Amino acid sequence: MRPYELTVADAAEAVRTRRLSPVELVDSVLERVERVEPRLRAFAAVTAGPARRAARKAEAEIARGALRGPLHGIPAGLKDLIDVAGMATTASSRVRAGHRARTDSTVAARLAAAGVAFVGKTHTHEFAYGLTTPQTGNAWDVERVAGGSSGGSAVAVAAGAAAFALGTDTGGSIRVPAALNGVVGLKPTYGLVPRYGVTSLAWSLDHVGPLTRTVEDSALVLAALVGHDPRDPASVAAPAVDYRPAPGTDLTGLRVGVPGNYYFDRVDPEVEAAVRRAIERLEELGARLVEVEIPMARYVQATQWGLMVPEATAYHERTLRAVPDLYGADVRVLLEAGELMSAGDYIRAQRARTLMRQAWREMLDTVDVIAAPTTPLTAVKAGRPTVTWADGEVESVSDAYVRLSAPADITGVPALTVPVGRDSAGMPIGMQLMGRPFGEATVLRAGHAYELAGTAGAMAPAA
Amino acid sequence: MRPYELTVADAAEAVRTRRLSPVELVDSVLERVERVEPRLRAFAAVTAGPARRAARKAEAEIARGALRGPLHGIPAGLKDLIDVAGMATTASSRVRAGHRARTDSTVAARLAAAGVAFVGKTHTHEFAYGLTTPQTGNAWDVERVAGGSSGGSAVAVAAGAAAFALGTDTGGSIRVPAALNGVVGLKPTYGLVPRYGVTSLAWSLDHVGPLTRTVEDSALVLAALVGHDPRDPASVAAPAVDYRPAPGTDLTGLRVGVPGNYYFDRVDPEVEAAVRRAIERLEELGARLVEVEIPMARYVQATQWGLMVPEATAYHERTLRAVPDLYGADVRVLLEAGELMSAGDYIRAQRARTLMRQAWREMLDTVDVIAAPTTPLTAVKAGRPTVTWADGEVESVSDAYVRLSAPADITGVPALTVPVGRDSAGMPIGMQLMGRPFGEATVLRAGHAYELAGTAGAMAPAA
Repeated sequence: MRPYELTVADAAEAVRTRRLSPVELVDSVLERVERVEPRLRAFAAVTAGPARRAARKAEAEIARGALRGPLHGIPAGLKDLIDVAGMATTASSRVRAGHRARTDSTVAARLAAAGVAFVGKTHTHEFAYGLTTPQTGNAWDVERVAGGSSGGSAVAVAAGAAAFALGTDTGGSIRVPAALNGVVGLKPTYGLVPRYGVTSLAWSLDHVGPLTRTVEDSALVLAALVGHDPRDPASVAAPAVDYRPAPGTDLTGLRVGVPGNYYFDRVDPEVEAAVRRAIERLEELGARLVEVEIPMARYVQATQWGLMVPEATAYHERTLRAVPDLYGADVRVLLEAGELMSAGDYIRAQRARTLMRQAWREMLDTVDVIAAPTTPLTAVKAGRPTVTWADGEVESVSDAYVRLSAPADITGVPALTVPVGRDSAGMPIGMQLMGRPFGEATVLRAGHAYELAGTAGAMAPAA
Repeated sequence: MRPYELTVADAAEAVRTRRLSPVELVDSVLERVERVEPRLRAFAAVTAGPARRAARKAEAEIARGALRGPLHGIPAGLKDLIDVAGMATTASSRVRAGHRARTDSTVAARLAAAGVAFVGKTHTHEFAYGLTTPQTGNAWDVERVAGGSSGGSAVAVAAGAAAFALGTDTGGSIRVPAALNGVVGLKPTYGLVPRYGVTSLAWSLDHVGPLTRTVEDSALVLAALVGHDPRDPASVAAPAVDYRPAPGTDLTGLRVGVPGNYYFDRVDPEVEAAVRRAIERLEELGARLVEVEIPMARYVQATQWGLMVPEATAYHERTLRAVPDLYGADVRVLLEAGELMSAGDYIRAQRARTLMRQAWREMLDTVDVIAAPTTPLTAVKAGRPTVTWADGEVESVSDAYVRLSAPADITGVPALTVPVGRDSAGMPIGMQLMGRPFGEATVLRAGHAYELAGTAGAMAPAA
């Protein structure tokens, strides 16, 4: 196995026991970047020089016995909404030409302190406002969408061009590209990971989290990200938790909620079959399946858009007036639409969210996790605008991708996607595991048991 | 001293030691109501029957040794926004004709469980959306405004027509009438007292709290109101605290912030002089005075209105369309104005609040309490629309009354008003003491020391 293929956990163990030097590891990943990047275009910027310097520094520190922890010397990508001091945060947008971040975001600073070597900034759908990331090709078929908005992060991790990457998730932007590229994505509980220094799409829905190749890796990265930061007004001081799942696959006693409505409506039959098989697998591992009814399901879309659209417009207010033509047409239309929304519309969405949060908490009193598809369909061909469902309903691809991920953004509950197979076109399928607020450990435990049971995702073919 | 003149603490002690029967106490207060109500009109409804039944029940319980606590058998008023099962909550509005509350509000249930005898529902400015409470006369001069919106509660307490009363405060609605009638009013920290069953004006600013004749009484009532209730989405589970101030007036070590801007701008000279004397008194008691600069002061009014107006309109959406003519003209105009506000306006106000909260927390790291006038002028003659300041500026009376109380609603910090004298027309003046979030005990300690030092308010003359 070449170093770039190693999981974070395996690379960390090899580094810790000095079987692998961080320099060797980072070089291997940078070579992989060089090889796949011309086709995949996952990166807005590759930072080979700083990554090699960080690797050499890590090597020297570890040589003298100063191992910082499991991320020391690990090569990672950052979605290009995440500030690193001295670098541009392009948001994959022409609006940000000439940008230069003055300080590190909290998450970049925490990863740097953990010894991470940043190999580059990964592409996002412009300002995170979309579900496809058109600059980037899917790691399994470059003619298909990467998913978005953290498309570059998912593709880089899937292709071995980073051991892990960070993404952001406002309506599904970590989980959708993770599912579409066959990797693991975690949207943590709202407020758990500080967003200081991360470009906002809609602050009442924005989350930062890891994309990795395994659930164990997700836990390792999450542990380095959590902790209160008053510079993010929504940041909470959550109790310290050991996120790393215990070894073993026994899920005895775990109550897994299986939605009787919403999450299996208008879902591709191959996706449904793979997710239902994965849920059966959880049952074989000892979990008890419980049918649950998703509350207020018909308000999800209106609530998501009612919150996101005016907040995004408020964030872009000045540049939208100053340089409207620098935005892509799709993003500009959405931002302009936000100017027409009334305070009453926004307030109705806020009130619906409050009620939805309460109703979800009550539902989550009855089960420990909820298992469901992450997206109702796999990666479509780039440029495809709509999907037609069996009942004749035509849905935009973006609406379809966001439909099953939005509830966890609205309610703030943690949501993990794990790969559970591929469809007949060979495209990955994701299962979503959602838990109680601050119940990351339980969600990760369920995902890890599933993964250990032997059906985890493979690395994408060399693109 | 007749029973209706007793403070809550003194009445409680007399009841506990069986020197006073709750029946005698409630009868005395009800007689006082009968005497003063024709002129003051503090009550939307007087509930003599239920009050007497509660008093007899309390008397029997206490006789068999089952004293519930310091509020057992104490007669109180509830602002008529607060639901009591089976009674109308009129909100002093024709819109609520035929209303009947199905369940008790949290605060009414908690007071009832503490043994309180409710003597009536007190008048509010219609739906709490105003600062004068035009139905009600000031307890010191019925030709002058009661203040609002909890005007009936303040007047009833000032006149001995209730031992204490509850009010609500969205822009100053507890503190303004308390100050204008020479009683003590406490707006607790946002989220500390649950608002379930209390008619909302603007939920992100609404607070429930006590109006009393002493600071000690305020602490006694507050203790019965706090505690998490999930039926109010903003309710927080705050740590249990003993609010009752220790005996004694020593304030050594207390840092009292004295605003160098905003709170003494455009303030009536008699009000300023009385408040500055009271602040000197705090210094004489051992406090250290520290000049503070109020942050973001020029955004207070826009933030208050930007939050309040669209939330109030959203709350009244259906009735405003169905029965617009049943609202008073002043309230209807405000509600209709809210329909014209954009989501961007509301979002700007929310963002300003977030920044203001942070800036206030930083300011409150440097001092323990902030002392300032509660209102820039005392009770004006009923119907007076404006005030002209020395610099020629003309301000509406309502804007003036809300100006110094709004910051504590926006930032959510606890704010107490205590009487600190009267102006040359004999009208009471209030000093406001604000503290850190959940710092009620410190605020009450400062107010109590001031009060013990001998300049506390007197009962209003028999109207």
